[in-house]
Amino acid sequence: MSAPATADDRATVLLLSGPNLNLLGSREPEIYGTATLADHVETATTTAAALGLAVEAMATNAEADAVEAVHRARGRHRAIVVNPGAFTHYSWALHDALAAFEGPVIELHLSNPDAREPWRRTSVVAPVATGTIAGFGGDGYRLAIEAVAHLLDQG
Amino acid sequence: MSAPATADDRATVLLLSGPNLNLLGSREPEIYGTATLADHVETATTTAAALGLAVEAMATNAEADAVEAVHRARGRHRAIVVNPGAFTHYSWALHDALAAFEGPVIELHLSNPDAREPWRRTSVVAPVATGTIAGFGGDGYRLAIEAVAHLLDQG
Amino acid sequence: MSAPATADDRATVLLLSGPNLNLLGSREPEIYGTATLADHVETATTTAAALGLAVEAMATNAEADAVEAVHRARGRHRAIVVNPGAFTHYSWALHDALAAFEGPVIELHLSNPDAREPWRRTSVVAPVATGTIAGFGGDGYRLAIEAVAHLLDQG
Amino acid sequence: MSAPATADDRATVLLLSGPNLNLLGSREPEIYGTATLADHVETATTTAAALGLAVEAMATNAEADAVEAVHRARGRHRAIVVNPGAFTHYSWALHDALAAFEGPVIELHLSNPDAREPWRRTSVVAPVATGTIAGFGGDGYRLAIEAVAHLLDQG
Amino acid sequence: MSAPATADDRATVLLLSGPNLNLLGSREPEIYGTATLADHVETATTTAAALGLAVEAMATNAEADAVEAVHRARGRHRAIVVNPGAFTHYSWALHDALAAFEGPVIELHLSNPDAREPWRRTSVVAPVATGTIAGFGGDGYRLAIEAVAHLLDQG
Amino acid sequence: MSAPATADDRATVLLLSGPNLNLLGSREPEIYGTATLADHVETATTTAAALGLAVEAMATNAEADAVEAVHRARGRHRAIVVNPGAFTHYSWALHDALAAFEGPVIELHLSNPDAREPWRRTSVVAPVATGTIAGFGGDGYRLAIEAVAHLLDQG
Amino acid sequence: MSAPATADDRATVLLLSGPNLNLLGSREPEIYGTATLADHVETATTTAAALGLAVEAMATNAEADAVEAVHRARGRHRAIVVNPGAFTHYSWALHDALAAFEGPVIELHLSNPDAREPWRRTSVVAPVATGTIAGFGGDGYRLAIEAVAHLLDQG
Amino acid sequence: MSAPATADDRATVLLLSGPNLNLLGSREPEIYGTATLADHVETATTTAAALGLAVEAMATNAEADAVEAVHRARGRHRAIVVNPGAFTHYSWALHDALAAFEGPVIELHLSNPDAREPWRRTSVVAPVATGTIAGFGGDGYRLAIEAVAHLLDQG
Amino acid sequence: MSAPATADDRATVLLLSGPNLNLLGSREPEIYGTATLADHVETATTTAAALGLAVEAMATNAEADAVEAVHRARGRHRAIVVNPGAFTHYSWALHDALAAFEGPVIELHLSNPDAREPWRRTSVVAPVATGTIAGFGGDGYRLAIEAVAHLLDQG
Amino acid sequence: MSAPATADDRATVLLLSGPNLNLLGSREPEIYGTATLADHVETATTTAAALGLAVEAMATNAEADAVEAVHRARGRHRAIVVNPGAFTHYSWALHDALAAFEGPVIELHLSNPDAREPWRRTSVVAPVATGTIAGFGGDGYRLAIEAVAHLLDQG
Amino acid sequence: MSAPATADDRATVLLLSGPNLNLLGSREPEIYGTATLADHVETATTTAAALGLAVEAMATNAEADAVEAVHRARGRHRAIVVNPGAFTHYSWALHDALAAFEGPVIELHLSNPDAREPWRRTSVVAPVATGTIAGFGGDGYRLAIEAVAHLLDQG
Amino acid sequence: MSAPATADDRATVLLLSGPNLNLLGSREPEIYGTATLADHVETATTTAAALGLAVEAMATNAEADAVEAVHRARGRHRAIVVNPGAFTHYSWALHDALAAFEGPVIELHLSNPDAREPWRRTSVVAPVATGTIAGFGGDGYRLAIEAVAHLLDQG
Repeated sequence: MSAPATADDRATVLLLSGPNLNLLGSREPEIYGTATLADHVETATTTAAALGLAVEAMATNAEADAVEAVHRARGRHRAIVVNPGAFTHYSWALHDALAAFEGPVIELHLSNPDAREPWRRTSVVAPVATGTIAGFGGDGYRLAIEAVAHLLDQG
Repeated sequence: MSAPATADDRATVLLLSGPNLNLLGSREPEIYGTATLADHVETATTTAAALGLAVEAMATNAEADAVEAVHRARGRHRAIVVNPGAFTHYSWALHDALAAFEGPVIELHLSNPDAREPWRRTSVVAPVATGTIAGFGGDGYRLAIEAVAHLLDQG
Repeated sequence: MSAPATADDRATVLLLSGPNLNLLGSREPEIYGTATLADHVETATTTAAALGLAVEAMATNAEADAVEAVHRARGRHRAIVVNPGAFTHYSWALHDALAAFEGPVIELHLSNPDAREPWRRTSVVAPVATGTIAGFGGDGYRLAIEAVAHLLDQG
Repeated sequence: MSAPATADDRATVLLLSGPNLNLLGSREPEIYGTATLADHVETATTTAAALGLAVEAMATNAEADAVEAVHRARGRHRAIVVNPGAFTHYSWALHDALAAFEGPVIELHLSNPDAREPWRRTSVVAPVATGTIAGFGGDGYRLAIEAVAHLLDQG
Repeated sequence: MSAPATADDRATVLLLSGPNLNLLGSREPEIYGTATLADHVETATTTAAALGLAVEAMATNAEADAVEAVHRARGRHRAIVVNPGAFTHYSWALHDALAAFEGPVIELHLSNPDAREPWRRTSVVAPVATGTIAGFGGDGYRLAIEAVAHLLDQG
Repeated sequence: MSAPATADDRATVLLLSGPNLNLLGSREPEIYGTATLADHVETATTTAAALGLAVEAMATNAEADAVEAVHRARGRHRAIVVNPGAFTHYSWALHDALAAFEGPVIELHLSNPDAREPWRRTSVVAPVATGTIAGFGGDGYRLAIEAVAHLLDQG
Repeated sequence: MSAPATADDRATVLLLSGPNLNLLGSREPEIYGTATLADHVETATTTAAALGLAVEAMATNAEADAVEAVHRARGRHRAIVVNPGAFTHYSWALHDALAAFEGPVIELHLSNPDAREPWRRTSVVAPVATGTIAGFGGDGYRLAIEAVAHLLDQG
Repeated sequence: MSAPATADDRATVLLLSGPNLNLLGSREPEIYGTATLADHVETATTTAAALGLAVEAMATNAEADAVEAVHRARGRHRAIVVNPGAFTHYSWALHDALAAFEGPVIELHLSNPDAREPWRRTSVVAPVATGTIAGFGGDGYRLAIEAVAHLLDQG
Repeated sequence: MSAPATADDRATVLLLSGPNLNLLGSREPEIYGTATLADHVETATTTAAALGLAVEAMATNAEADAVEAVHRARGRHRAIVVNPGAFTHYSWALHDALAAFEGPVIELHLSNPDAREPWRRTSVVAPVATGTIAGFGGDGYRLAIEAVAHLLDQG
Repeated sequence: MSAPATADDRATVLLLSGPNLNLLGSREPEIYGTATLADHVETATTTAAALGLAVEAMATNAEADAVEAVHRARGRHRAIVVNPGAFTHYSWALHDALAAFEGPVIELHLSNPDAREPWRRTSVVAPVATGTIAGFGGDGYRLAIEAVAHLLDQG
Repeated sequence: MSAPATADDRATVLLLSGPNLNLLGSREPEIYGTATLADHVETATTTAAALGLAVEAMATNAEADAVEAVHRARGRHRAIVVNPGAFTHYSWALHDALAAFEGPVIELHLSNPDAREPWRRTSVVAPVATGTIAGFGGDGYRLAIEAVAHLLDQG
Repeated sequence: MSAPATADDRATVLLLSGPNLNLLGSREPEIYGTATLADHVETATTTAAALGLAVEAMATNAEADAVEAVHRARGRHRAIVVNPGAFTHYSWALHDALAAFEGPVIELHLSNPDAREPWRRTSVVAPVATGTIAGFGGDGYRLAIEAVAHLLDQG
C-alpha cells in the first residue's frame, strides 16, 4: 500500500491520509477545494525536498492500514503528518498507535473543524499531537512539512 | 467483493450492508427475524426488477470496504440503500463518503433503533440520508427499493 | 371529526395527522413540498384500495382529538399510520394512547427529522412505534400503507 | 364535561383525571390493574362520604379542559386530587393553573413513576403539589381523599 | 372563540394569549400584577387605534385553538403579538404554526422569564419570533403594538 | 436497638426512620412540623392497631443499622414503611437491602422532596419502593399504614 | 468617556453600549442593520425628550468602563438601558454592578439572541434586568426609552 | 490470519487481541509492561493445556477481522477471551458480533481502564461480557483462561 | 468483628465484604447465585492455602467498619480483596482508606456491574484498585486470590 | 467516643473530624503533611485557650457518630468546626444534621479540594456552612478557631 | 493605581480586589455587610503590621489592571491575597497570571459562594490558589493575612 | 500601545497578542519555552519581510485594547494573526470584533490546547478563524506569517 522509504540518506516523514481524502478535488469542493490529494502530496514532497527531507505518502480508507503504517513508522520515519479525515472523531486505535510513536506528530486538516458542526470539534488524535494546522487548504501541507523540518532541527 | 454492475440498461441501486448482517437468520432471531441477508437481497432484487431497476448488493464487515463501495457508486449507481449495522452509531467515515454521493441515500434498519437502547438512537448516517425506513424487518428492503424508484422517477 | 369506518368488509387503517399538517402545500414548501394533506390522503387511500385495505383519515391540531382517535381505533382498526407533526417531540399523552393500541403503529414524517434541528431528533412516539418511515415526502404515505399491508398479512 | 358541584353543604374536592385514564381496566392491566376509572371514582366518592366530603369527578384527555377545571375550582372546591396521566411530564399549563389554586393539591399516580422509565421521573406538577401518593393502584384514591380530609381539618 | 376582523380598512394585528392568562388580576398578583387580561387588551387596542391599526384579541387555554388562530391569521393579519403563557416552554405545535406565518411575530411576557426558574428560560417560540418584549407588565402590550406599527411601516 | 416483634398473632410492619429524624419537633419546624418522631410512631401504631396490625418502630442515624433492620425484617415482617431521611439520596446499600425484602415497601417523606432543592429529587430508594407517600407531614404515617393494610389484604 | 449629566431638571437615563457596538452600520449589516450607534442614540434622545427625560449615552469596549459607568449611575440616573453586546454572555462583573443599581434596568438587543447561535441564548445580565427588548433593530431604542418612562411614572 | 483449530478433542478458546496489542513490549512499557503479546499468548496456552483446553490466538488491528473471527468462533469455540484494545471504546460492531456468540465472553485488559483517562471508562464491549478481568498485566491471561475453564465446567 | 490474623508465618490477605453480602444465597439468586458468603470465603481460604497465603475475612454492613478494617490492614496484610457491594457507587471514605493502603487492592464483584443498570457503572473504588475481577460469581474469589498471589510474588 | 464538655465557663467549640483523618501523618503525606490529627487538635486547643474558648474534639469514621455529635452539640456548643473528610462529597445526612445546628459552622480542609480531582469539588456540606477554610494544612485549625472566636464575638 | 511597595525591610503582600468591591458598604449589605473596602484594607494592614508584614492594596474593576498587578508582584511581593469578585467565575486571564506567580495565592471571598447561586460555585482561580477563605465577611481579611504569615514562616 | 503602520507600500499584518504573553520566557517555560514575546515578534517580522509583508505587533492584557486593535485593523491591515492567550476561552467580545474583520484571521497558540486541561479545548475565537496553528512554540509565528502570505496571494 505504501512505497518503500527513500533509499537516500534524507530523513523521511510519513504523510498519512485517512478516509475519503482520496476523493479530494471532487468531494464538496466548496469546503475542500479543487486540488486532489496527489496535488497535496506533491506540495509536501516539493517542500520537503527543499528542506532536505523526504516524504513517504500513504493514503487509506482503512483504520487498520493507518494504524499499521504508524507502527512501521517507528524507528523508520522521523515524524508523522496525519490528516485523519473522519478518524479524527472516533479512532482511539489511531490515537493509541500515534501515542507509541517516538517523534513529532502533526495533525493536519484542510478546513477548520472548530468552525463547523459540533461533532467535528472533538479530536481523539489531538491529545497525542505535537501540534495542529487546520483551515489553510492545500497550503497546510507546505506548512506542516516546514513545521516538521523545524522540529527535527531542534530535536 | 461486489459483482460488476449489470450490463443492461437499467438504472442500478447499491444495496450496502454493514457489519454482522451476514449473520442474519441465526443472530438474535427474536429481534432480527429468521430470514438471511440473501433473502433480503432477493426481496430487493425482485422488487427492483418489477420497477425496471437493478440492484448491486454488497455486504461487508469492513468500514473501508463500505466507504470504497460508496466511492465507486459515484457516477455509477443512481441511489444507495444502506443498512449500516453498527456503523450507524460511530462511522463518520461512512458519513463523509455518503455526503459525497450525488444521489438519494436511504438508511434502512430491520428493527426500530429508537425503540431500543439509548446508544442505538444516535445515527451518524442520518444527517446525510434522504430518508429512513426502520422496524419493518425484511419488508423494509422492498419498501426501500420502492422509495428509490419513486425518488428516481421524480429526479 | 372523523368519518365512520367503511361499511364494507375490508380491514381499515387509521391515518392520523397531527398539528399544522392541514397547512401542507402552503407551509414551508421547500421542506414539506407543494402537495396538500388531501393529496397525501388520496395517495394512502388509493394504495390501500389496491391492497384490499380501507383508510380512515383523521387530521387534527388538538392533542385530545388525536388521543381519542387512537382510543376509538382499538378493536376497530387493524393498524395506525401516524404523522404526529410537532406532537412527535413532547406528547407523552399520544405515546400512552398508542401504547394501548394492540396493532402495528407506523410513525411517518415527510422530512427526515434526524437531518434537521437537534430538538427534532427526539421522538416520544418512537418507543411505541413498530416502524418509522421518514424523509420521502408524499411517497411516504404510499410506503406506509404498503408496510401496513405486509404487517397485517404476516400477523 | 363535569357534573355541577353538589348542592348540599359538604366541602367538595375536585378529582381530576388526565389523558388515557378513561382506558383504565383495559390498558396495560399488568401495570395499571383491571379496575376502571369509574371504580376509582367510586372509591373516592365512598371514602369522601364517610368523611363528610363530596367529590366532583372530572376526566379529560384535553389539557385545556383540565386547566379550566382547575380554574373553576378556585373558590368552589376545597382541594384538588389530580392524576395528571401523561400531562405529568410536560404540561406547564397545568402547573401554572394549579399554582393559582388556593387549596391543597394532591398528585396521585396508580403506579410508581420513579420505578419506571427515566422520563417518567420528571413531574412538572410536583413543584406545586402539597403531597404525592403513588404506586398503590386504586387504593391511592382512598388514601388521597383521606389525606385531603386531614389537610382540610387542619386548615 | 374570536371576533371577526374589523370591517374597516385598518391593518389588523392578532393578539394571542395562551393558557391561564384569563386568570390575570387574581393569579399570583405579586408576579403578574392586578390588571386583568381585558385591561391589557384595552391597552393594546387603544395603542393600536392611535397608530392606525386594529387589534383582534384571542385568548385560549387550548393549544389547538392557538394553533388554528395562527393559521387563520395567515393572509388576514399583518402581525401577531403572542403571550404564549406556559406554551412558551413546550408547544412545538405553536412554534410550527408561527413559523408558517408570513408577518412579524412578537413574543410578549408580563414578567421576565430569564430572571425566574430555570425551566422558564427555555422558549420554543423564540426561534420563530422577530422580537421579544418581557418584564414590563401591562405596559408590554403598549410596547408590543408600537413595535408592530414600526415593523409594518418598514415592511 | 429495636424492640422484639409483638408476641401476639398480628401481622407486623417495620417502621424504619433514617438519619436526623430523631430531631423532629425541634429541627426546622417550618418544614417538618412540631410533632416528634414519637408522635409519628404513635400515629402509626394507633392506626395499625385499628387495622389489626402491629408496628415495630426502629430509628437510627446509622446506615448499617438500617440495612440490618431490613435484613431482620425478611420472613418476620409483612411490610416496611421507610422514611429514609437523607439516605434517600445516596444509600445504595439501603436500596440493595430493600430489594431483597419480599413484601411491600412504602417510601414515606414528611415534606414533598420534589418541591424542594434539586438534589432532593433523586431517590435511590424509589426504584425498589412499591409506593410513595410524601408531603403530608405526620398524617403520612397514618396513610402509609392504611396503604400497607390494604396491600396485605390484597396479597 | 461620557458627557456630564444634563444640567436641567429632567430625570436622566444611562444608555450604556458594550463592545463592538461602535462598529454598527458597517458590521454585519444583514444582522445589525445600517444605522450607526449615533443614530440609535439620537433615537433614544429624541424619544426621551418627548417624554421629559434626558439620556446620557456611554459606549465602551472596556468592561471596567461599563462597570464604573453603572457605579456612577447610582444616585444619579433613574434607569439604565444597556445593550451589553458580547458582555451579555460572560460578564458577571457587569451583572454584579447592575445588581447594585437601585432603579430599573432594561436589557436591549438589536437582534433576537434566542433565535441565533446557542451560546447567544445565555445572558448573565438577564437575572438582574427588569425587562428585555430584543429583535427590533434600532426601534428597540425608542421602545426601551418608552418602557423606562412608563416604569418611572409608576415608581 | 489465524491458525486452524486444534485437531485434537480438547475444547478450544478464542483469544482475540485488538489494535496496537502487537506492539506490546515496546509500547508505553510503564503502563503495559515489557512482555510481548507472544508472551501473553504463551501464558494463556500453557494455562489452558494444564486445564485440558486449547487456545486459538488471533491478533488484528482490523475491526472487520475481529468481527469475523468472532463469527467463525460460533459453533467452533467454547469461549472467547477478548482484549479489545482501543475497540473497547467505540466498536459497536464488535459488540454486536460478541452478542451473537453463544458462549461466555471474557473482557480482558492489561491495565485498569477505570483508573485512567475518563474516555477509557466507557466500554461498549462490557454489556455483552460475561465477566471482566483488568489491571493484572500479563497474569490476566492466566486468570482469564482459568475463569473460562471454570465457566465451561459449570455449563 | 474480625478474627485475629493467623499466627503462622504465611502472608495474609484481607478479604473485605461490604453491605448486603451477608445475604448471599438467598438475595436475588438469579443474579448472585445460591452460594453463601461463607462458601465464598471458603473458596478464597482454600485457594490461598494452596498458594501459601492466609485469608482474613471480614464482612460488614457498616462503612466505618470497612474503613477501619482497611486502616488495620496497613502494615499487617499484604493485599486486600474487596467486594464493596453498594459502597462501590458512593463511598469515597472507603476510596480514601484504600488509597492509603500500601499493597495491591483487588476490586471484586460477583456480577458484571457494567452490564446492569447505569448507576452500577460508576465505581468510586476503581481509581485506587490495582485490578478488577467481575462477573464470575463465586469463582471470582478463587481468581482474586490467585491474582494476589501472583502480584505478591512479583513485588 | 467524645470527652464531656469542659466544666469551666468558657464557650466551647466542637471540632469534628470525618473518616480517615485518624491516619493523618502517615497517609499521603505529600498531600496532607506529616502532622497527626492530635497535632491539629493541639493547635486548635491552644489557639482556643488564648481566645477564651474551649475545644471538644471528636473524630470518627462513622457517619452516624458524626451526625449524632452534631445533634449533641445543639444547645451545648457555640460553633462547629468540621473537617468532613470524604463525607464532604456525599453525606447528606451530615448536611441535614448541620442544618439543624443553630450556631456557625466552619468547613475545614487541609488541602484545597477545588485544585484536585473533579469529584472533590462537590461539597454537600458547603450549603450549610457559614464559611470555608481550605488549603492551609495544619494552620487551618488555628485559622478556623480564630474565625469562630470572631463570629462569636459578633453574635 | 497602586502605591509603591513599602521602603522598609518587611516582606510585603499584595492585596488585590476585583470588580465592584469598591462599592462595599453600600452594595447589597445584607450579603456583603456595611464595612467598606477601606475598612477591610485597614484590617489587613493592621494584622500584617503586627506580624511583621506590609500590605500593598490594589483595587480595580479592570481585568488587565489585575493581571498586570500580579505580573508586577513577581519578584516583589511574597504572597498574594486576592478577592477576585466576579472575575472568580470567568477570568482565565487572571488564572494564568496567578499561575505564573511563584509565591502563595490566597483566594478570599466575603460571602460563601458555595452556598449561593450555582454559577458562583465555579471558580477559575481555585486551581491556582494555595488556599481559600470564604464566608467570614471582613474578618476574612485578618484570617488571610494570618494564613500568609504562617505560609511565609514555613517557606 | 501600538506603533503606526509602516509607511512603505507593503501589505501589513496585525500580530495581536493577548493577556500574559508579555511574560513569555519566564512564565512556565516547560510549557511555553524560554523565548520572549519580542523574540516571537522578531521571528514574525523577519519572516514577513522575506515575503514582502510588514508586521504590526500589538500586545495587551486588556480585552478592550485587543478589540479596538481589531477595529482599527479594518481597512488597514490585510490579515490578523492572533494569539488570544486566555481570551481564547471566554472573550466573545474579541470573537465579535474578529467576525467584523474582512480579511483572514489566524488563531495561533504556542502549546497545543487540545492536549491540555479540558477548559482549554473550548475556543470562542475558532468559529471566526480562517485557520489554526497550535503547538509549535515560537516556530508557529513563522508558520502563521507564511500561511498569511499564501492566503493573501490567493485572494
